[in-house]
Amino acid sequence: MFDLLVKDAFVVSLGKKLNVGVKDGKIAYLGEEEKPAKEVLRAEGKLLFPSFANMHTHLPMTLLRGLGADLPLMDWLQKVIWKLEGEFVSPEFVRDGTIIALAEGIRSGTTLFMDMYFFEEVVGEVAKEVGVRVGLGFGILDFPTKVAKTPEEYIKRAKEFVKAFKGEELVFPVLCPHAPYTCGPSTLRKVYEIAREEDVYIHTHLAETQEEVERIKETYGNTPVMHLERLGILDQRWLCAHVVWTTEEEREILKEREVKVLHCPESNLKLASGIAPIWDYVKRGIHVCLGTDGPASNDNLNMHEEMSLMAKLQKGASLDAKAMNAQTALMIATENGFRAVGIKGGKIEEGYDADFILVNADAPHWQPLYEPISQWVYSANAEDIDTVVCKGKILMEKRELKTIDQERVKFLAQKWREKILGFMTGRGAGGGASASGAEGRGFKSPRPDV
Amino acid sequence: MFDLLVKDAFVVSLGKKLNVGVKDGKIAYLGEEEKPAKEVLRAEGKLLFPSFANMHTHLPMTLLRGLGADLPLMDWLQKVIWKLEGEFVSPEFVRDGTIIALAEGIRSGTTLFMDMYFFEEVVGEVAKEVGVRVGLGFGILDFPTKVAKTPEEYIKRAKEFVKAFKGEELVFPVLCPHAPYTCGPSTLRKVYEIAREEDVYIHTHLAETQEEVERIKETYGNTPVMHLERLGILDQRWLCAHVVWTTEEEREILKEREVKVLHCPESNLKLASGIAPIWDYVKRGIHVCLGTDGPASNDNLNMHEEMSLMAKLQKGASLDAKAMNAQTALMIATENGFRAVGIKGGKIEEGYDADFILVNADAPHWQPLYEPISQWVYSANAEDIDTVVCKGKILMEKRELKTIDQERVKFLAQKWREKILGFMTGRGAGGGASASGAEGRGFKSPRPDV
Repeated sequence: MFDLLVKDAFVVSLGKKLNVGVKDGKIAYLGEEEKPAKEVLRAEGKLLFPSFANMHTHLPMTLLRGLGADLPLMDWLQKVIWKLEGEFVSPEFVRDGTIIALAEGIRSGTTLFMDMYFFEEVVGEVAKEVGVRVGLGFGILDFPTKVAKTPEEYIKRAKEFVKAFKGEELVFPVLCPHAPYTCGPSTLRKVYEIAREEDVYIHTHLAETQEEVERIKETYGNTPVMHLERLGILDQRWLCAHVVWTTEEEREILKEREVKVLHCPESNLKLASGIAPIWDYVKRGIHVCLGTDGPASNDNLNMHEEMSLMAKLQKGASLDAKAMNAQTALMIATENGFRAVGIKGGKIEEGYDADFILVNADAPHWQPLYEPISQWVYSANAEDIDTVVCKGKILMEKRELKTIDQERVKFLAQKWREKILGFMTGRGAGGGASASGAEGRGFKSPRPDV
Repeated sequence: MFDLLVKDAFVVSLGKKLNVGVKDGKIAYLGEEEKPAKEVLRAEGKLLFPSFANMHTHLPMTLLRGLGADLPLMDWLQKVIWKLEGEFVSPEFVRDGTIIALAEGIRSGTTLFMDMYFFEEVVGEVAKEVGVRVGLGFGILDFPTKVAKTPEEYIKRAKEFVKAFKGEELVFPVLCPHAPYTCGPSTLRKVYEIAREEDVYIHTHLAETQEEVERIKETYGNTPVMHLERLGILDQRWLCAHVVWTTEEEREILKEREVKVLHCPESNLKLASGIAPIWDYVKRGIHVCLGTDGPASNDNLNMHEEMSLMAKLQKGASLDAKAMNAQTALMIATENGFRAVGIKGGKIEEGYDADFILVNADAPHWQPLYEPISQWVYSANAEDIDTVVCKGKILMEKRELKTIDQERVKFLAQKWREKILGFMTGRGAGGGASASGAEGRGFKSPRPDV
């Protein structure tokens, strides 16, 4: 008896209509027979794809969505984001922001998220309630935040955090040194030691902007990847977000050390960080994954958009239409993510974890349907996703969320909108916004209530 | 008595909740009073934006969607598209392809299309039935197609075509010399003469690839824009698609001659044509519009995607996060298109044509809602569009098409899919596809039936 039988889905990677049997969170049967199951999902006419792995994000930042748009990375961080985070970040902020983020993430077909923020134990609680996979890690920095005051305190807390979340089913702890420009060599070495002792991954930002490269060169005499290499800490544990600016030599190091690159094309464009040479990385055999980055620099958590953009951007930037075909883009957005953190998922095969989506291909933008993979990547959008299954559990069906109350999402968003706009306009919570008062704390005037 | 009253819409450009009265296809009232009207659209909580102007496309190419993906422009054209068009293009192909295209276009918020294909009189008929605006022109070339055999015959037909469609309400004729590499100087000069005599616009492809630039240089000793300039024919009548590769001098000419640039970022990336320097054009004061290009090189007609990509791409490619803010991107995607062809539309103001959309901002990816313009451009997607109005007529409401039968769209697509796959696999119509027979006519194996 299976836990779930998906009936008559068109399994795109196998090119045929099949029944998919799920047991204990795994794909246990792929074939034409109708097997008995506790629950049956009718999928006639729907396409079955692996779900997405969003390998770099900051989930709670939904609450800061759209603020400071059209500013460069450092201005955006210093003048808007850090100011608001300093005022508002709390366990409640993190909980509510994560609920909104997971609603959005599930609706766009994602079942695995690599997160980095504050109060990640709260992100972990929400993830377990909702039923998605999250790699949890709080940002470790050399300066004080709400998490800790000194590098020693960060390291101590990181150790405790790793121990507390190890062995969970859906969530897993990782270490998150924020970046080489916010963590000195001593912190980075200590983080690496704990990662080896506890056998966990390290999730960081690396070589995101030219400015960062210059700064690291000035401070340490090396470019960012080389800096980590010289510290003797680079290995397959490292999941490095962005990696936009690298030398030839550094690319060879990334390959050799089996470092995973977490590509975030929309954020890199929007913050004007640049276009990462992903096609070159792929050709060299570097393990590339895909992520949205936080929803405040994207400004959403839509992995389908990210996948479609990645493929087109690599073609356009390298002036080679054969660069990054649809099949490769899909693999990077799905299987490569799961594999990067040791989860046997992202592929529709017996023995793999049951993380998949059913896609409705009825809309006019799918017509006619000749090539499902190519049209999924280039023609479709995330709203075509009908059903989302994570580790055998249905999280969305007929676009209705099963584990999150969507009305509550709007309610939570409205609550924080009032608080945050109140602060930005200098008029306290609940007052809405007015153009006249908006410059009070150095923020540009937000729009009034809709 | 108004024809239509849109009640309680949040008019984003004005920053307030208003009633919008429509009479004779125009916005006749914008205010807080509840005016009497024949029809009332309740828009409480919805955002009102101008509809999109898709300023460069080939609508009937929906029927070739997704075929030949991941090939460069010339291979894609010669090995796939032209071969299939030679076999299939007919008035029936154009009619059915256009119905699918307009269903998709309306669903993604577009009410004005600049089209270039064969049998454009059929596109015109469908557009009038459906109720959208289309600038109609068949491709004029120096070699024979299904439209005409000799340059003289093309010119004669073009004149007849212009006369036949002048004075219509929703559709208008334009002249479409295909490109400088398919039309010699004599043809271009004759086209320009008719354009002046008949007072119509000229819609063409220009400076799309580096290959084209080299070819024009070799043949005429000039780069493409300069080539047209030297022919003495460039003026404000020209609507030029792509314009990816230009010299400084050519950019000044585009500005001086008031040529309109029709930017198609997704197609330019996907066919690896390059990234057009649109932000530079905008700063110089060149009139830039936006288009999707045909749905076979995009692979959809989604103008929202195009707008969002354009803004991010200009930031990323110019390494300047302030390049192309959301407001500018929205203007290029809407008002600039209407204005380029002399239609007073794309703006929510009394006296402007009533072409607008209502957007549902309830989904989690909109939460919280701080900055409607920025979040429309960066966070939202076309599926958030609830209602589409073209010249005062409701074409979609609650995502239901009012003037196209969506079931028929699927039926037509299926009919052509069978014919085209039958040809590609060498097994005649109706047979579906099999991997073994697919190489028959030099096509790569398509996927089997879903």
